[in-house]
Amino acid sequence: MQDEATIASEAELIGLLAPLAAGAAGALGLIDDCALLDPPEGCELVLKTDPVAEGVHFLADDAPEDVAWKALAVNVSDLVAKGARPLGYLMALAFPQAPRRAWVVRFAAGLMAAQQRFGCALLGGDTDRRPGALTIAITAIGVVARGRMVRRATARAGDLMFASGTLGDAALGLALRRNPQQAARWGLAPPEADHLRARFVRPQPRLALASALREHARAAMDVSDGLAKDAARMCAGSACAGRIALARLPLSPACAKALAAEPTLMQRVVSGGDDYELLAAVPPDAAPAFCAAATAAGVAVTEIGSFGEGQGLLLAGADGRPLALARTGWDHLA
Amino acid sequence: MQDEATIASEAELIGLLAPLAAGAAGALGLIDDCALLDPPEGCELVLKTDPVAEGVHFLADDAPEDVAWKALAVNVSDLVAKGARPLGYLMALAFPQAPRRAWVVRFAAGLMAAQQRFGCALLGGDTDRRPGALTIAITAIGVVARGRMVRRATARAGDLMFASGTLGDAALGLALRRNPQQAARWGLAPPEADHLRARFVRPQPRLALASALREHARAAMDVSDGLAKDAARMCAGSACAGRIALARLPLSPACAKALAAEPTLMQRVVSGGDDYELLAAVPPDAAPAFCAAATAAGVAVTEIGSFGEGQGLLLAGADGRPLALARTGWDHLA
Repeated sequence: MQDEATIASEAELIGLLAPLAAGAAGALGLIDDCALLDPPEGCELVLKTDPVAEGVHFLADDAPEDVAWKALAVNVSDLVAKGARPLGYLMALAFPQAPRRAWVVRFAAGLMAAQQRFGCALLGGDTDRRPGALTIAITAIGVVARGRMVRRATARAGDLMFASGTLGDAALGLALRRNPQQAARWGLAPPEADHLRARFVRPQPRLALASALREHARAAMDVSDGLAKDAARMCAGSACAGRIALARLPLSPACAKALAAEPTLMQRVVSGGDDYELLAAVPPDAAPAFCAAATAAGVAVTEIGSFGEGQGLLLAGADGRPLALARTGWDHLA
Repeated sequence: MQDEATIASEAELIGLLAPLAAGAAGALGLIDDCALLDPPEGCELVLKTDPVAEGVHFLADDAPEDVAWKALAVNVSDLVAKGARPLGYLMALAFPQAPRRAWVVRFAAGLMAAQQRFGCALLGGDTDRRPGALTIAITAIGVVARGRMVRRATARAGDLMFASGTLGDAALGLALRRNPQQAARWGLAPPEADHLRARFVRPQPRLALASALREHARAAMDVSDGLAKDAARMCAGSACAGRIALARLPLSPACAKALAAEPTLMQRVVSGGDDYELLAAVPPDAAPAFCAAATAAGVAVTEIGSFGEGQGLLLAGADGRPLALARTGWDHLA
């Protein structure tokens, strides 16, 4: 078969995806109508569906391996934020036209790399051809000991606010994808620009932090629609106020350099999406243990603010004055 | 708020959908990142994702209530074919533009009617705006006693082939939606044409038959891509041959009348999709009990053929000659 040829049938597509299900008994070889899942004893399941579409979540010229990675990573990131371990996933593919075999082969390779990293397998799915954007709709299933899922809306006044990794990289990476000339304006060396772009195309769910969240965090969520919007959601759900000290935001060297060259980029850092870092509310007396657990897991965490009585999220600049946002964050319907 | 107004934010949309999650503790009020599911003891979960898109699975002028019903029904139908009981579902919505509030209100009402009928609730989801067709991607989760899921690929030579309800109605209903003039050509009275159209827009998953399948069927699947294609899949997966006697196909009075007026419609009856009836392989000695259980459940089942040694599916006409199909059934990539 020619790699340049288009996929000729659903059966051919399933054949190329079957290795992704090889390790999962409940996938039933991808030839049944449904997948089967035998939940581990004493556990609850954590479920998430977050489709990605070309032109919205990834770009038409992204490598198929990267598209696949991101489609799974964005869902796994949510599971991890709940303290869950990924078990498996369902995937519904929508193609505007029959895909080329070469694209599917590379896409499957990217999924294989991602699922091996994340410790899960393909359980089942569906394929359609329909007009519009190429869409990969993954539903991910994770597992957590009964009663131990970390919630979003359970922060309390007095808790400290922590973020993992670095924030803002992906938003600047997307900006560079759209206008590569900005790298020079921001004074970035090629490896720095590459770092930012990679953070957009290959998000790294913080699996190693799930245990620290379960043990020490009162609430958590992943940062996918921008820090400002997601932190505001945690505050609103928890009936708390939140305060973030912008000077404390963990920034990569590349992001810090760009921000020094163009301070208004702070808007993008806090309201651009696609960070896939974790945001956690941690009681002050649990903070040392949380930080120690994160360090042991090899993930940097930074105290960026706190929760208090009241409502609303304040983004406090280095001068103490609040940052007014032109756009709070990503809202698909606003 | 005006019903003609468009939905202004994801939060507003979630507010309109929240009643669908009211009965499900694991939905966490739709304000967490993930849904939580506590699987019943001794059970396995059965999982299915089957998105529906405007222009492919439903039409732009379909009533929002019907679109919602169908989006859930097509997934529940798969669970039921596995002998499972629906528990809940996740739903990812993709809108080409922000929807009107009135549309969402009616859509939610249709979902409420469907989930009450099917005995499940909304657990979580996601919303995007992206170019292309309005898409509703539902992942349904069902439950079945451990080891009791009814498989697709486990039919054996010697088993009888049964179908529930009547076949072909939805395919003719879709044809009527596209060209209403055909009703006169087929000699259909308005209630007969309405029946066929209703079968396309409001599929009725055969929930009452799940128990009979679990107790008596060796294999089962739902008929969604056309009888010929789906029965061939069961045969191929089971390494069996299949033979269907077309004279035995269970037909509604409306479908029978259309077929009498235009015998070539048999092509559509066996290869059109959207029946959402059940196809079952039943050992001959279990057939009386299967039929009795179906009757007790209020669902008609008809012996339409059998499985044998070999491979391939034969559709035998009333004269004993095989029907040659112009198109086997629905394949999104062929």
